Order: sequence, then C-alpha cells, then structure tokens
Amino acid sequence: MAADGVDWLRDPVRPPDREAGQRAARRQGELTKPSGSLGLLEQVAIQLASLQGSATPRAKRIFISVFAADHGVAEERISAYPQAVTQQMLANFAAGGAAICVLAKALDAHLEVVDVGTLSTQTRIAGVIVERAGAATANLRREAAMDSAQLAAALRAGRNAAARAIEQRADVFVAGDMGIGNTTAATALTAALLQVDAQALTGPGTGLNAAGVKHKVAVIRAALRLHDAAARQPLQVLQMLGGFEIAAIAGAYVACAQYGVPVLVDGFTATAAALVASRLQPGVRDWLLFAHRSAEPGHREMLRSLRARPLLDLDMRLGEGSAAAIAVYLLRSACDLHNGMATFAQAGVAERDDA
Amino acid sequence: MAADGVDWLRDPVRPPDREAGQRAARRQGELTKPSGSLGLLEQVAIQLASLQGSATPRAKRIFISVFAADHGVAEERISAYPQAVTQQMLANFAAGGAAICVLAKALDAHLEVVDVGTLSTQTRIAGVIVERAGAATANLRREAAMDSAQLAAALRAGRNAAARAIEQRADVFVAGDMGIGNTTAATALTAALLQVDAQALTGPGTGLNAAGVKHKVAVIRAALRLHDAAARQPLQVLQMLGGFEIAAIAGAYVACAQYGVPVLVDGFTATAAALVASRLQPGVRDWLLFAHRSAEPGHREMLRSLRARPLLDLDMRLGEGSAAAIAVYLLRSACDLHNGMATFAQAGVAERDDA
Repeated sequence: MAADGVDWLRDPVRPPDREAGQRAARRQGELTKPSGSLGLLEQVAIQLASLQGSATPRAKRIFISVFAADHGVAEERISAYPQAVTQQMLANFAAGGAAICVLAKALDAHLEVVDVGTLSTQTRIAGVIVERAGAATANLRREAAMDSAQLAAALRAGRNAAARAIEQRADVFVAGDMGIGNTTAATALTAALLQVDAQALTGPGTGLNAAGVKHKVAVIRAALRLHDAAARQPLQVLQMLGGFEIAAIAGAYVACAQYGVPVLVDGFTATAAALVASRLQPGVRDWLLFAHRSAEPGHREMLRSLRARPLLDLDMRLGEGSAAAIAVYLLRSACDLHNGMATFAQAGVAERDDA
Repeated sequence: MAADGVDWLRDPVRPPDREAGQRAARRQGELTKPSGSLGLLEQVAIQLASLQGSATPRAKRIFISVFAADHGVAEERISAYPQAVTQQMLANFAAGGAAICVLAKALDAHLEVVDVGTLSTQTRIAGVIVERAGAATANLRREAAMDSAQLAAALRAGRNAAARAIEQRADVFVAGDMGIGNTTAATALTAALLQVDAQALTGPGTGLNAAGVKHKVAVIRAALRLHDAAARQPLQVLQMLGGFEIAAIAGAYVACAQYGVPVLVDGFTATAAALVASRLQPGVRDWLLFAHRSAEPGHREMLRSLRARPLLDLDMRLGEGSAAAIAVYLLRSACDLHNGMATFAQAGVAERDDA
C-alpha cells in the first residue's frame, strides 16, 4: 500500500446545517420548561439537529466499532496486564462477555470488533473483522511505532468502519479501543500534540501503582525525545507514537465528519484519536460529542484543548467504547425531550412574567 | 387529623443486606475489566444488590410520583413564573406533555401525579391523584407554612405513594416536585438544617436575575429569623418553612426506607426533602442514590452534608424528577454490566500480572 493512501484525509468535511440548529434552539425555548433548564441536554439536541439537518434529532441507530491492536511498547512493562489480554479480550468481545457487548445489547446497537493489528495471527476468531495493519506496532520507545504503509492501512480501517456505519444508516457512531499499552501511546501522542510534559498527563491506565506511573512517564519522555515529536506534523506524530487502534479511530472520526455521521467520543484513548483527527481537519470538531471525563489525568488537558465538556463523569477507565455506550442514553433522552415535549402554546402554560 | 399522625416516621428503617453487598463487590472484582474501571457504576450495582438483598440487582420497574403544591411565599415575588403555572403544569403532566412524562414513557416507568396542595380546588384533572394537605401553604415569610395537621397529611401523602410503589413491585422509587416558589422553601429549609447563611445557598431557581436572587435571600433570611429556625427540630423546620410537596417527598423517602425500596433522589428540591428525611431517621441515607448535581448553588452544600456524589452533572434545574429519570439509565447500565458480563474464569482472560 502506497504512503499516498492517506490523501482522502484531506477530502472536505461536511458542514453542519446551521439553520436546522437555529430552528432546534428556538424550539427548545418554546417547550414547557424554564429556558435552559435541561442544561447540556438542550445543547445535545441542538447539536444533533444541526448535524443531522433535521427538526427531529435521533440517536436510535447506534453503530459501535471496537478496534483492537497490540503495542510494541508493552515490552517496556508499562501496563498492569500481560499483553496476551488483548487477544483474549478479542475472544471475549466475540463471545459477548465484555462490558461493551452487554451495553451494546441493551442499546440494541450494532457492534462490530475489528482486529486492526493484534500480536497473534494464529487464531481467527469468528465474528471479528480482520483489517490488520501489522502484528502489533513497533516499540515507540525504540523506533517509529509504524511505517507509512501501516499508518495508511490503520487509518483506512477506521474509514471503512465509518462507511459501514453509513450503510447501516447509523444516527451516531461510537468507536471503542482495546489494546494493552494503549494509554502509553495515547499519552505520548497527547504530550506531543499539546506540547505538555508527560508528567502532567500520565496516569495508571488499567491500574499501575505509583512506581509504575513514574516508569511510564520516563518511557514516554524518552520516546518524545527520540522522535523529536514536538517538531512534527500530526500525521507524523501518529506514525511515530501511534497505536493502530488510535490511528483507526482517528481515521473513522475524519471519515464520519466527511460522510456526515455524528460521533460520540468515548474516553482517554478515543479522545487522543479525536485530538489527532481535529488537528488533521479542524472541521471534524463540529461532529464530535464527548461522552465521559476519564479518570486518567491527561484527559482533562485533551478536553480543554478540544473545548469539550463531556456528558458523564463516572470515574470510568475501561475503554471499549463503554462510557460512550452509556452516554447514548443521554443523547436519546435529549432527543426524546426535544421531539416529545409540549410547547407552552400547546399546553396552555404561562411563560415567564418578564417574557 | 391529629398531630400524632406523624408517629409512623419513627418506625424502624430496614437495614441493607450487607452480605449481599459484599458478594456483589466480590463479583465486581471477577468481571473481565480492570478492577474499579467501571467507577461509580460498580458502587451503584453493589448498593442496589445490598438494598435489594439480591445477587442480581435490578432497576427495571421504576415508580415515579410527582408531587405538586403551591407556596404562599410566591406572593413575595420570588419566582420568575406566575403561580398559576403550578396548576397549568398539573394539566400538562396529565396530558403527557411535560419533560417527566416523555422520560417516563421512554423508561416504561409507572408515572403518577399527586396534587398535595395546589392553589385552585376548582378543577379536577383526570389522572391526577388528589391528596391535598391544603390549598397552598401559608407565606413562610409571615407565618408557619403549615399547621401540624397539614404537615401530617403531606407526609402521609408521600407514605401512600411509597406504599403504591411497593404494590407495583418497584425496583426503584423516584419522587418529582412541581410548585412555583419551591426553591425558596427548599433553600430556607437547607439554611435552617445546615445552619448556613441563605446567601451561600440561594440561586435563580427557574430563572431569577441577580436582583431577584438578592430579594429571595432577604425573604429567606427574614423567614429564618421569624421562626427562630436554627433552634428547631427537623420536623418543626419542615412545618415552618415546608412546602407540601417537600414534606410529601420526605415522607415518601422515610417510608421507602421502612418498606425497603431504593430511592433515586432528583435535584435541588428533592434533596432538601432527603436532608429532612435523613435528619428524621439517619438510616434513610442508606436507601438513597443521588441522580444529579443541580445548577442551583445550595445543592452542593446539601450533597456535602449527605456525603453524596450524584451520578450526573448536566446543569439541569427543572425538577419534576427529570434528572432522576435520566439517571435511571445509569442504574440499569450498572445492573446490566453486573449481571451480564463474563468473569475472568469464564472468558479465559488473564488477570493482572501482580494479581
């Protein structure tokens, strides 16, 4: 695959329908409630109306792609879990036992799992889509995590998922991540893109102790120096520090914005991908809603940079798209209220004394 | 009705099933996710398991009672809306046009509306339960909001709702409030019970401007002085400053704890009732889960006093039980995950390196 396989990233992003958004904002002011009293749910309804170009925003059909990959940096012992867990969890996803499976079922969502580059190639797991950019990334502490062909393949795996979401007429797209070691990659990416020291961003991931976090900081700092990451463009940063699943999610977000599918961003790893996608194409930001403020400390900095206020703050730190799946209910509630409540005129309810 | 009609408040509260809670906590540690990575959702599942005495906690059958009442203090002009709105909203509840109606329908919840003392007695509205403690409270700025018979009647209206919830085999009880002027009563109650100055607690309610908030503070301060509120017992404070719907909700919460129905507390007004209920019977606190951190400033102080961390923080300030209805989805998700995920042993997934 040629390195120019990433040209599609520059295709224009679809603009939101500002008029539909304005109409939705006016309707919010007419519903039988004090103006603004539904808080963020009003903003969600207005944003979805504007993205869907519709007077009746919807979050019914949910398309969830979980991208799994392995990380060469796992050999630096930056995770509390053995690397084999990535592959084992792939089987758990396929069997329906993982958190995201339970949540997707309750939502009646379409759930697919994509192996975008786990370590083992020996086992094919029924029900897992195989779009491998490689057999794990290289160790970002020692060399570039991927070559340009791998980067293009991973980004394209994400774009393909967005295309399947369109085929399924998804109202909202959710990406999940699975990959032992991926908070190290996501933190390194964030440190490079935001030009913030790793110390301020690095957390326990799936459960490191204090010494483990300190070591993780040292690994990330060394990687940033090795790749002169601060001097590089977003796509280069992604290639050096990457993570196939992070590249895939970034590709999916760009494609969703091009195709016109609203995105509900999950937690820490997915937000790192959102940061990359927004740097590649600033217009992507309009298409993103944010599900959850992760317990991982770097997440606050990412969200600040993206001017994002997430809907939930539940101390979750699981990934898989799990927090986004839960936040879908808030999107649905926002739509239900927007579409289903009576107006002051319909209900014969008086407005404010000063209205 | 005799004043001793409140003796039932002293009946013992049911103790949670600590063993069921411990078993649930163990199961959380066995599910295929890093320990603690579902954050508050793990605590919700454990608390519900302990309250329901069950290995498989549930939040399927939801019983919502919305209590509507009028407030004599409305004549002090402490609300942005005319008092007639209480009655008009009662009709909107009955017709299905209000926010809580839309949310209850989506949840497939049982929704009932109780007129516990609105101003007008002229209109009977089909579908509204009538258990009136009076035709609006007296103006708390000038006299006691209710007499002892009215207090007993309002508390009992709440207890009757809890009894209906039990009849319906509710997994979770939600109380909502409607009453123009009720944030003034709720703020006054909170100031008296927490012995905090009204200035630190008072907010815009449904939408006062800065001058309106200042006036509201003055009204509340005058009321607290008039009734020597700081020196009184919780039940007396409730009678002086009350609000029939606040008394009803407090009564419902005490009864739920006596009957053994978990309670999901809504926002500002409902939390004032929770504060009263917990002062009347400290054991009530175990039965409460908290839905939402209200945009109303006094809510933070109430929550601190109750050692409560709500599940949502969406800048909502509507009442009606609306935030609790939305938080039901988080309870359901917590139960789904607890009951439906695979364990490490079932899925053949490795545990932590140090486990």
